[in-house]
This record gives sequence, structure tokens and C-alpha cells, in this order.
Amino acid sequence: MRAVDIILKKRDGGTLTKEETTFLIFGYVGGVIPEYQVSAWLMTVFFKGMTQEETVFLTEAMLNSGTRVSLDGIPGPFVDKHSTGGVGDKTSLVIAPLLASIGIRVPMMSGRALGHTGGTLDKLESIPGYRTNLSLAEFQRGLAEEGFAMTGQSEDVAPADKLLYALRDVTATVESIPLITASILSKKAAEGADAVIFDVKYGSGAFMKEKSQASALAQSLVNVGTALGMKISTLLTDMDQPLGNMVGNFLEIEEVLDCLEGNGPADVMEVSLALAARACVLGDKASCVEEGLEVCKKALESGLPRQLFLSNVERQGGDVKRLLEMRKNYRSQYALDIKAEQSAYITHIDAYKVGLAGVYIGVGRNRVEDAVSPTAGVLLYKKSGDWTDAGESIMTVYAKDDGSLRGAIPLLKDAVSYGETKPDKKSLIG
Amino acid sequence: MRAVDIILKKRDGGTLTKEETTFLIFGYVGGVIPEYQVSAWLMTVFFKGMTQEETVFLTEAMLNSGTRVSLDGIPGPFVDKHSTGGVGDKTSLVIAPLLASIGIRVPMMSGRALGHTGGTLDKLESIPGYRTNLSLAEFQRGLAEEGFAMTGQSEDVAPADKLLYALRDVTATVESIPLITASILSKKAAEGADAVIFDVKYGSGAFMKEKSQASALAQSLVNVGTALGMKISTLLTDMDQPLGNMVGNFLEIEEVLDCLEGNGPADVMEVSLALAARACVLGDKASCVEEGLEVCKKALESGLPRQLFLSNVERQGGDVKRLLEMRKNYRSQYALDIKAEQSAYITHIDAYKVGLAGVYIGVGRNRVEDAVSPTAGVLLYKKSGDWTDAGESIMTVYAKDDGSLRGAIPLLKDAVSYGETKPDKKSLIG
Repeated sequence: MRAVDIILKKRDGGTLTKEETTFLIFGYVGGVIPEYQVSAWLMTVFFKGMTQEETVFLTEAMLNSGTRVSLDGIPGPFVDKHSTGGVGDKTSLVIAPLLASIGIRVPMMSGRALGHTGGTLDKLESIPGYRTNLSLAEFQRGLAEEGFAMTGQSEDVAPADKLLYALRDVTATVESIPLITASILSKKAAEGADAVIFDVKYGSGAFMKEKSQASALAQSLVNVGTALGMKISTLLTDMDQPLGNMVGNFLEIEEVLDCLEGNGPADVMEVSLALAARACVLGDKASCVEEGLEVCKKALESGLPRQLFLSNVERQGGDVKRLLEMRKNYRSQYALDIKAEQSAYITHIDAYKVGLAGVYIGVGRNRVEDAVSPTAGVLLYKKSGDWTDAGESIMTVYAKDDGSLRGAIPLLKDAVSYGETKPDKKSLIG
Repeated sequence: MRAVDIILKKRDGGTLTKEETTFLIFGYVGGVIPEYQVSAWLMTVFFKGMTQEETVFLTEAMLNSGTRVSLDGIPGPFVDKHSTGGVGDKTSLVIAPLLASIGIRVPMMSGRALGHTGGTLDKLESIPGYRTNLSLAEFQRGLAEEGFAMTGQSEDVAPADKLLYALRDVTATVESIPLITASILSKKAAEGADAVIFDVKYGSGAFMKEKSQASALAQSLVNVGTALGMKISTLLTDMDQPLGNMVGNFLEIEEVLDCLEGNGPADVMEVSLALAARACVLGDKASCVEEGLEVCKKALESGLPRQLFLSNVERQGGDVKRLLEMRKNYRSQYALDIKAEQSAYITHIDAYKVGLAGVYIGVGRNRVEDAVSPTAGVLLYKKSGDWTDAGESIMTVYAKDDGSLRGAIPLLKDAVSYGETKPDKKSLIG
């Protein structure tokens, strides 16, 4: 078997076998197949796609390139939640303790902010002392006792995905549904979840700008995940404007606490509950989404999710007392308000532009090795559909330093659109 | 400028500028742009093609990656001949001295056998003592005195092409008309020719299996070559069965001598004259192809081309006396006849299969570093359209050793097709 023949076969419309796919992936990870052949193959996949079966083979090969987390001895069900990434998207941190309170264990391995999208690990690390580099034993213990644990992906989970992702990033082969599917599912399968609820986002602040692309990815995740023996649900959600009123690292932790205390913004609550309700069905805690919604609302009212969240903070090294004291005052000193230029309706706040501004001010990062700021962020007082008088504050911007604050202001001003008529309310869940 | 953005632009249907193309090629040759990005770009070109202007930019960048041979001080016209490769194709060795005898100088830089196709340098080196690694001064002197010289490509001619060709070979990106065009023309332009006649072959033994592909390549060579300021003619010729009655290294030198002495096989003569006639037009020695044909026939009858050929052999270190003595007896001892299995018409002798058998027996090579055998080859007694009685010899096979002889026999038997009706005579020139 030669790599060039595999590329040729794919290039000319052929379908790769399990053996060919495994040969390619293992050869790449093992250093036998050079990057220039892998990148040529990636580009053929971009143009020619992959059948569902091929995508299953690829996901399995990527999964088998590393180790699988063992959850033996901990009672299930295990349901994970994964989002394709957005701006202001803190729903994981609401959903994990919520599901745990219902008896569903959530083995969550999260990522970091990259480009305009935020990262769960960066948000958690804004809590003084919080550690996200758990050992496997620590991860298992948290999962057994609080019902969830929050950690980064260990080095030996799907190493093929790390290599392939870095290569796709520099060869213009990121936007491929089968490659994205295999990347996501190989990691999720390695984490030990029996079931996953996917939040597939669309709109300016999402990876997929068009709903049709998001829908194709969702379908692919269901097909391939199911073929791999996992239970998969997907939900398409709108990411055209930031989710919630807070975009940042510690700012989003605050908003999570608000949600867990029953004071969360309507949009964050709607998406969180919709996802959690589907997770309840996946975890056999409800027979339908409607019942799942009731179960979740009741659980939130009980206060147990908040208790489990704080218990997790403490377990993972965070200082709960300080966390609660820091609410509403842990903010960067480099702050400025953006005020409305006219009396009008806010017709849109562009999530992508807010996310890009976030990279400037220190919420996110352009390169994996960049540091983020815990106290940077954007506090939104207005969202699409709200009326504003000229001069009223639309948002407060907190930046890591003065220069980045000034750099971000024009971008954030540009993110706001005004109009004379109130825009129709868009459905968040589509 | 970033390579990934250039790949992305091409991938999404954009047209690269001169700056972008030069950045990519010079960056690659300079070791700044890694192979994995170049191979991804090559695959986008395979799928998305290139405009004529883009192909001109690419050819120029490849040409400018190396040096151009200077022919200053030698009077022209300079017309080169190039074939896309075939089996039994020795026309270059007939045409070069023929054109030289008419006053057209032929600065010929040839290649070696690779895969199923033969190579002019390997054929010439079967003449004891013959050197194909001429210095530039030797090349220029031969060109000035015999009117032609035969050498390999120097290291500094289009180094980008050497790198790109090696990369295309292992990434399944060989079969792309713009990439082939740029590869061929960057080398031809560097050799100092004002004009080139291209023999673009189609059929089983050619690189292009379909005439439509050959025609597209010919059109691309004309368009891009003309845009580069060269005079270009093309001829499509059939390579479905081997050209001539001899396939091998020294065997083909013999057949060249036969041609130069007026005893060449009809097909070799037809293709050689058709190409040479067009070269006469390119070199202003005839006003039309018909006149060119007359000029070439008359030149052959004069005996001067044969004299120039032998003079070149002597200049390049070959032993003319031994060459002439070796005719008809410089043959490998590992020989076997393939006899007709039935009394029938020969309907086809598959050039590709004969070429592949040639690799086994030592005419050609699979890898650049493999040696070839001067005395290996196939002598064909029958061609398509000939009648054979059962048991009559169709060919004699000469192999480098006994094992390869036995290995090649089934392949060569399989190359022969029989039929009850005489096949229609196919036109050689299309």
C-alpha cells in the first residue's frame, strides 16, 4: 500500500477502505507518511468529500491513534455536551452541574479560546486557583463525586487529531464537514461518553456562517456518531449575536452563577435548557424533550446545580469564597463605555466582530501560545431588538491594557447596527 | 502574504496574481514555504485549474528560479523538439541531425527513461563512450559545429520544476494540464530555444490516454508558450502501439541509423518528417508544412543528417567504428521469441504493456536511480494490421537477465491482440 495511490484513488472519486484510511492515519502519526502527502489527501477530501462509512473509518483511526479514558467503576449514564464554538457561549458551565444534579455524569474535556471564539478552560481559569490540568484519577474522582469534572484534553487523546488539525489550519483544509466530524467525534469518543448533545451554531459568530452548513454538520455528526455506537442529539442554535450579556473570562463565570441562581439572561437560559433537556432524553432521565425541560427547570430551582458547581470549583483548586466576593468587581481598570450614536432600535450586534474585538482586548487569542486576561471582556446592556436613546451606554469594554482598549473600540462600534423599526425576533433555536 | 491565504484563494476559485505565484514558487525553492503547503496548492490546481495568465506566471516563476542557457554568438534559428514521451519513440535522434543539416540549430536537452516510457539520454549512452553530461561550453560548441548537441538538463535549469515534479509524483498531482504546461515550457524556455515543435502523444503508451487530453495540452502549450514570446507548433500523434520495430536502448540507436540511411520503418519516418517539416516552418526554412516535408526528404537523401549524427557521436565521446560494427549483433544473450498463438490478424500491440515489460527487462526504470541495460529490448516483426500464421515469431525479447526475461514474457504475450478481420489502418497523426 502506498500513500500516493490512496490520494489518487480519493482524487479520482474512489472510496477509501478501512485499511487504507488506517494506513494513512497511523502512518502519519508514526512519522512514516510525510505531511506533504497528508495535506494533498486533505485537499482531495475537501473537494471530493467522504462517504459516511469513510468518515467512520477516519474517526476510528484517529480515535485509535491514542488512548480512551476509562470510566469503569463509575455508574453512568455519561452524557457529554459539545458546542462548535461561539461568542459569549458559557452554556457548558450551566449544563454540566445541572445534568450532574439530575444523575447524569458529564465527562467534559474542553478547549481554549482560539480566534474569535471563547474557551471553557480559559473561563474557568479566571477563578483564582482553578486547575484544568487534572490527572485521569482526579478527573474520575470529580466525575464520581460531583457528577462532572472539567479538564483539558490529555496529550494521548486522539493525537492524530492534534496533528491533522494543525496541518489543516495551514493548508486551507479546515472547512470540510467529514474532517470536522471526525475531529470532533474522535475526541468525544475518547473521553468515554456514551452519548453527546451537540450545539451546532450558525451565524456570524459561529464557525459555520450558514444554517445549511450547520445542518449538514449536525446530520454528519448524528450519522457517524451513531455508526460508532454513540447516542447523538444535535441542536442548531443562532450565533449571530453574542449569547448572553457578558463576553469574557471571569465575566462569563459571573453570568454562569447568575444562571445557576435563576437570574440568567433569557437567551443563555433558553439554549442551556434546550440542550440539557435533550441530554436528559439521551441519559434516560426523560422520555421526551418537553419532559426533559421540566426536569431541568425543577433541578435548577432546587439549587443543587449551583452547589455542585461551587463544589467542583473547590475540588479543582478554586477559592469559592473569593469567587463569590469577586462578583461584580473583578474587572480590568482599562474600561470604556460605548454609547449609542442615535436614538433608534438596535437591529444587530455582530457576534463575529465582538469576538474579534475580544481577541484584541485579551478575552481570546490568535495563537495557541498567547495568554488571555481574566478580567477583560464586554458587558452588553443592549441586544438586538432593544431601543436605545442617543448617548445611552450600549456596552462597557474591559481591556487588558490601554492600547488594546483603544484598538478594540472602533471594531465594537462597528459591530452595532441601528434601525428605525424594531427587528423581528429571531428564533434562537432552529 | 501568507501561503495559506494563497491556497485558500485558489481553493475557492480565485485567480492568483503574478506576485502570489512568484511568492509561492520562490518561497518553495528557498525553503521558506514547506512542502505540505505546496502539495495542498498543487491539489487545488488539479481540481480548479489555472487561467492562461496564471500558467504564464507559474512558468515564468519556475524559469526564473534557475539560469537560462546563453546561445549568444551562435547564429540561429534555434528550434527544439519535445515529445511528451512514448514507447519506441526515437524521433528526436532522427530530427536533430536532419534539422541541423537544413541550417536549423537544435539545442536539445533530453531526459531519461522513467516508468514505461523511454529516454533519449539512455539510448545515446548505449553507444560505447558516449557522454551526455556536457558542460555548457561543450554544448555550445557542438551546437555551433554540428548544429545540434545532446545533453541532460543541467542542475540550474528550472530547479523549481525538479522540486515540483518530485512532489507531484508522490502527491497524485501529475495529471494537470497547467502544471504539465509550466513544467515543460519552463525547461524549454531555459534551454534557449526560440521555437519548439511539440509531439503530444495520446493512446495507451502515452502519458495522455485520450486524444482530447492531448489536444487540451497542445492548446495550452501553444497559448502559454506564445504568451512567453516563443514560437510553438504542436502535433498530436498516436502512441497506441510502439513506434517503429525496435524498442530498447541500443536497438533504437540502430533504428535511427536505419532512418538516417533511408531504411527506417514507415511509422517512425512519418512522425519524424511531420515534426521536422513543422520545425522547418518555425525556423523559416519553409513557408508551409508541405514545403517543409520536401525540404526534409531532400535533406535525408543527401546523407548529410547521417554524417552529422556520426560526427556528433564522435564529438560526444562515442566510438563510431564500434557503433557501426555493433549493428545487428549488440544484443543481450537472454533472448526469447514470442510466437503467434493462432493464425490471425494482429489487431493491436499495446504500447503501454510493451513499455512496462521494458522496465522489467532493463530498457527503462521505475526509480530515477535504477540502471538500464544497453542491450535489452524488443524487436517487433509484426505490427497492427499484419497477418501472422500460428507459430510465426511476433517479437524477440532481449532481457538484462534470465529472471526478468521470464517475468516479461506473459506481459508481452498479453500485449498482443488477434482478430479474424484486418483492422482499419489508424492515422498516426491526428
